[in-house]
Amino acid sequence: MFMSELTIQFGQLVRKYRKERNMSQEQLALFCNMDRSYLGRIERGEVNPTLEKIYEVAKTLEISARDLLP
Amino acid sequence: MFMSELTIQFGQLVRKYRKERNMSQEQLALFCNMDRSYLGRIERGEVNPTLEKIYEVAKTLEISARDLLP
Repeated sequence: MFMSELTIQFGQLVRKYRKERNMSQEQLALFCNMDRSYLGRIERGEVNPTLEKIYEVAKTLEISARDLLP
Repeated sequence: MFMSELTIQFGQLVRKYRKERNMSQEQLALFCNMDRSYLGRIERGEVNPTLEKIYEVAKTLEISARDLLP
């Protein structure tokens, strides 16, 4: 399993913005074309996400991709 | 081969900052632990880079990772 300080902080930002928008993991995952368990892994820092995925999540959360960078 | 507007713009930013620093592809690749051909693919937008890789390149170029986001 991949984990680093960076992916952990990224995951925490995704969770923070998701909760601010009162979205469930299921909802965010659905809009980002991923399954809920994968989003769970992202939020726990277990995924080293790609540029495309970072933008997809940011777009769904209606924030700039830059806001998701630690 | 993976390519998108996003990866193309990312690659152009990597190239721009690399040239501003008068670094060759060989030098940047060496510092980022990748081979020159992989960096060439990044600069042409043929790679969907991961969060970790974006930070590695940014650190070597002495810029913020945010500066590499289109």
